Amino acid sequence: MVDGVHFRLQEGWATPAEVGHRALAGALSDLAAMGAEAGEAYISLGLPGGFGEDQALALVAAADMLALRCGAAIAGGDVVASPVLSVSVTVTGWADREELLIGRDGAREGDLVGVTGELGAAAAALAVLQARVPRTVAVEPCLRRASRPEPRLIEGRALAAAGVSAMIDLSDGLASDAGHIGRASGAELRIALERLPLGAGVREAAAALGRPAAELAADAGEDYELCFTVAPGRADAVEQALRREGRAQVSWIGEVAGGPAGVTLLGGGGDVVRAEGFEHRW
Amino acid sequence: MVDGVHFRLQEGWATPAEVGHRALAGALSDLAAMGAEAGEAYISLGLPGGFGEDQALALVAAADMLALRCGAAIAGGDVVASPVLSVSVTVTGWADREELLIGRDGAREGDLVGVTGELGAAAAALAVLQARVPRTVAVEPCLRRASRPEPRLIEGRALAAAGVSAMIDLSDGLASDAGHIGRASGAELRIALERLPLGAGVREAAAALGRPAAELAADAGEDYELCFTVAPGRADAVEQALRREGRAQVSWIGEVAGGPAGVTLLGGGGDVVRAEGFEHRW
Repeated sequence: MVDGVHFRLQEGWATPAEVGHRALAGALSDLAAMGAEAGEAYISLGLPGGFGEDQALALVAAADMLALRCGAAIAGGDVVASPVLSVSVTVTGWADREELLIGRDGAREGDLVGVTGELGAAAAALAVLQARVPRTVAVEPCLRRASRPEPRLIEGRALAAAGVSAMIDLSDGLASDAGHIGRASGAELRIALERLPLGAGVREAAAALGRPAAELAADAGEDYELCFTVAPGRADAVEQALRREGRAQVSWIGEVAGGPAGVTLLGGGGDVVRAEGFEHRW
Repeated sequence: MVDGVHFRLQEGWATPAEVGHRALAGALSDLAAMGAEAGEAYISLGLPGGFGEDQALALVAAADMLALRCGAAIAGGDVVASPVLSVSVTVTGWADREELLIGRDGAREGDLVGVTGELGAAAAALAVLQARVPRTVAVEPCLRRASRPEPRLIEGRALAAAGVSAMIDLSDGLASDAGHIGRASGAELRIALERLPLGAGVREAAAALGRPAAELAADAGEDYELCFTVAPGRADAVEQALRREGRAQVSWIGEVAGGPAGVTLLGGGGDVVRAEGFEHRW
């Protein structure tokens, strides 16, 4: 993650601690999407001249707290001079057996499409920071959540154990990431926008932007929820697993069909809105 | 490694391939210094707008060739946008048993101090690139060597197996890195500058700078040779191990004494030149 590209420190959009948290969270989220356990993490900091030791320590301390909570160990790293603040995180993860890890290529026609937790907070928070949405009490939950996204490691392992067929984390946004599953699996993920679970404050932010809330949520990255596919016969097992183990619950948002490989987003009236290839930058 | 700090791409000081090679070499060198085998490597690139796909592929291809040669596997990584080219490399390494790994804290009074290969090429090459030394045929070997430093993995394992007591790679320069062994071990490394093995062209570059060649070699980083300490009774085993396995041979450059913890550099007449804490930037 690079200042000015993935976050904006200078303009007060993020604190050093939030940068440290988010850099590690984004890396751990990739492990969550495979159903892996977190192992070691390695953090390399590129620090510009004006960046103080206190700030660097706050950044690393926040990453360390997240690591502790996720069962990861920050095992190494480096600090170098750089004209721009950058945080490079490598994480390794593991599973007892290779076949326990979930890829993106296992979605099959007839599978259900599910998503954990709630969507749209990151997009709403970005719009507030960009001053495109007024900072009201209603949208405050989005800012809180976006500043400290939670990698869904427990949920990822529970979903893997419950037999999901494909999984991905929503780092680029549902419209883009579900498309990765679709293309890798050679299948069409048909997703009903009206079924998307919207985070608190997302409707208000979308209204201020004059956009449908579900489209805002589908387009935006960095929610770090998990999107997965699963055979209908295992849907109960998925729900039970998340109730038992996860902090985030499941929403069923679509199914896998036989159309063109990728993602198809369906509007309220059943009309088709394709939204592949969206690129999100914080 | 960051453009403008650890290398200078714009001014033609390094090609993308050299940047890729050097970034991985620097990381692998840390494994060599512990006597570890190389395992997986992860490379994250921060690419500025004008950096072409061909250049990025050349950078990674050079790292990949080095990895292949060193028994490392590039197992992952990432590419992000960045205002400045940066290459962040994480390597993991291993040994069959933890006690086979060599630290910096094992130097004991009476040990000999050895160094692999030849020193000074990186310093000479930097001076040429800075136009402080004319680019003559004599100094050309320094430039070749400095553009593709070789991590001493084979030598590091051979030295570990031969029973060295402490080891470090010369990334910051002998004066600085030998001091790390000294301080970690609570011992004084006394090093005779006249015994330093100088690379081809280093004398010529030093003469052009008006500096003693050995001081140039002692101050300069990025030679990536190994400096180690070993009990005198194991010196023969060290020499045999490097003759059998290594491409670089050993030079005996000093001994461990009971003075203040750190490094003491001795000039030609036995006079003391302390040179700790030198910081090198390419």
